[in-house]
Amino acid sequence: MEAVSVIGMSKWDLDTPALCVDLDKLQANIARMAASLSGMGLGCRPHAKTHKCAAIARLQLEAGAVGICTSKVSEAEALAAEGIDRICMTTSNPSRSKIRRAMRLCQRHPAFIQAVDEEGNARDLSDAGREAGVVADVVIDVAVGTRSGIPPGEGAISLAQLVDTLPGLRLRGILSYDGGVQHVVGYESRRRQALANMEASVETLGAMRKSGLNTEIFSGGGTGTYNIYHEVPGFTDVQAGSYIFMDMQYLAIGGREGPVYSDFSPSLTVMTTVLNDRFPGRLTTDAGAKAITLDMPRSGVIGEPGMDYDPDSDEFGIITFTEASRSYRIGDRLELIPPHCDPVVNLYDRIHGIRNDRVEVVWPITARGCSQ
Amino acid sequence: MEAVSVIGMSKWDLDTPALCVDLDKLQANIARMAASLSGMGLGCRPHAKTHKCAAIARLQLEAGAVGICTSKVSEAEALAAEGIDRICMTTSNPSRSKIRRAMRLCQRHPAFIQAVDEEGNARDLSDAGREAGVVADVVIDVAVGTRSGIPPGEGAISLAQLVDTLPGLRLRGILSYDGGVQHVVGYESRRRQALANMEASVETLGAMRKSGLNTEIFSGGGTGTYNIYHEVPGFTDVQAGSYIFMDMQYLAIGGREGPVYSDFSPSLTVMTTVLNDRFPGRLTTDAGAKAITLDMPRSGVIGEPGMDYDPDSDEFGIITFTEASRSYRIGDRLELIPPHCDPVVNLYDRIHGIRNDRVEVVWPITARGCSQ
Repeated sequence: MEAVSVIGMSKWDLDTPALCVDLDKLQANIARMAASLSGMGLGCRPHAKTHKCAAIARLQLEAGAVGICTSKVSEAEALAAEGIDRICMTTSNPSRSKIRRAMRLCQRHPAFIQAVDEEGNARDLSDAGREAGVVADVVIDVAVGTRSGIPPGEGAISLAQLVDTLPGLRLRGILSYDGGVQHVVGYESRRRQALANMEASVETLGAMRKSGLNTEIFSGGGTGTYNIYHEVPGFTDVQAGSYIFMDMQYLAIGGREGPVYSDFSPSLTVMTTVLNDRFPGRLTTDAGAKAITLDMPRSGVIGEPGMDYDPDSDEFGIITFTEASRSYRIGDRLELIPPHCDPVVNLYDRIHGIRNDRVEVVWPITARGCSQ
Repeated sequence: MEAVSVIGMSKWDLDTPALCVDLDKLQANIARMAASLSGMGLGCRPHAKTHKCAAIARLQLEAGAVGICTSKVSEAEALAAEGIDRICMTTSNPSRSKIRRAMRLCQRHPAFIQAVDEEGNARDLSDAGREAGVVADVVIDVAVGTRSGIPPGEGAISLAQLVDTLPGLRLRGILSYDGGVQHVVGYESRRRQALANMEASVETLGAMRKSGLNTEIFSGGGTGTYNIYHEVPGFTDVQAGSYIFMDMQYLAIGGREGPVYSDFSPSLTVMTTVLNDRFPGRLTTDAGAKAITLDMPRSGVIGEPGMDYDPDSDEFGIITFTEASRSYRIGDRLELIPPHCDPVVNLYDRIHGIRNDRVEVVWPITARGCSQ
């Protein structure tokens, strides 16, 4: 309903809640990650689950990304429909109908890669590939932890051998994503844990290579470990997502230089309006859980470190504070750093690209709601 | 991307995560609320913030609702564009651009009502009404608590008097929504608190009536208090939302007859697929925080009361259990009752209407993401 005429408008005048990204910071984050990884001899395969936005994927590919990751087949479909190629779907996909959807993508986009983590699923994928007349690229999802993927070791190696023999599939290597370690606080403990957790995957990859299997891809990692995995033997590319936006969760993990993780700048914000100023030390805003999610730690109010932002009301945010830099009145705007970027972006149909506080562009969130 | 050909399909075969509503239960819930309120001499003005769906709003109006509530102007715009009339926007709207949007709605839908809770805002609304050539219907939002609305008493009465004199506005009465009391556990304590919390609003309404102001609308209440407010003098209609779907939060508040609130049947579910069955007492599914939210208490797995469902992973649900009714394998489906219906519905673009386990209809979530 919002008119296209917001172009040129100050972000402080946007109807709220409004999702915004600072374009200078976004572009600097993309450039910094690309340069850092390339300096460490690694590729960048950014995860689009964070932004779900074809325009941002395009910026990442233009900056030299080797490909783009998606979590779900519906995300891959939506981005591919907007011209994004070289997509790697990082989650296994065990249902027949979604396997068919994935193979239709393979037909149109031969560079599409999908994860597999189980023998039955590998056979189903191969059958579907043959039926679709394609040889589909797959990577073995080698687990770190218990969430998803096949545990490293014998089982994973057998699965890779099976994939190598299946007529509808082409083995490209492995992915090994350690979700848990990304938010470990403190660079040194994060590094120690990250490297220890990857040892079994490294051994599995080594055994695969020894038995003559293709190991050209060894993908994993994220924003919290992008500057760690170059120490992992055979590792090829990083699937970082959040680095383009940052959020309260990543700011809190600490960097090499101190307690705030400042390698990338927080570029993603939500503009909100004060609806109630009647009570001392308290404000109500128009951005609740439907606009900023319940993730922890809570949203940061830019310029107001003393404010606590409670979104535990679907339609309203409740701010409490003992000190503020100024007084706020009904109708005043505040700018929030989201707790966790991925699920917040997933609430909005569009994102306002801001430069020098003005709207330069409005991008659709191409794959918003694509959870299948 | 999902084809329209899901009509007739078993809900157990849908690509997941998939949002579903059992149509028999939905219709029974709508009929039961309509009959109960009418039996108590009250109107039903269901809140569309719960479903954001024009098709469901239509069912509610057909069942005799006196109108439909929305929280935000963008919700009202989206539903009005689909032919839903008699909308009452229950949140005040202090920004100039959104006031203009609301007045454009008034031009096309003279039955549109909006909440006001502050003198400056009332004057702005009146000016915008005159500019748009309309006399806009408003209700005073009389606060229960500190979240939104003007506190009851002198200030609220003065505001009503001001509205009555402003040329662009027509006073219709008040609304007084007690969000906090809806989830008080135990019918008797809920009733006691609900009635006590409304006393000041009742007095305010009485004073308004005495001074000759229009008090034809005294709206408020929700699913937790629908069978309490007929005891509130002058009260006219209930803004219940969740009763059509129910959720884990409302099931837990307790009813007149026992610890489970069973006045309405849980009709809303999310279908999910098992992605990992490798570890005893543990399953991974494909419905994480982007599909089922972080609200508490956690999702219920239908038929598996011993399962705990942790969605604290954006893309995955983590189930842990000591006992289950059967064993589950990769690819198996589970059906979840969401923690809190409103924000879960807001994640999906469509809802599958299910009868006897088959898809009868697919409805767009008309106002999904309309948080402005």
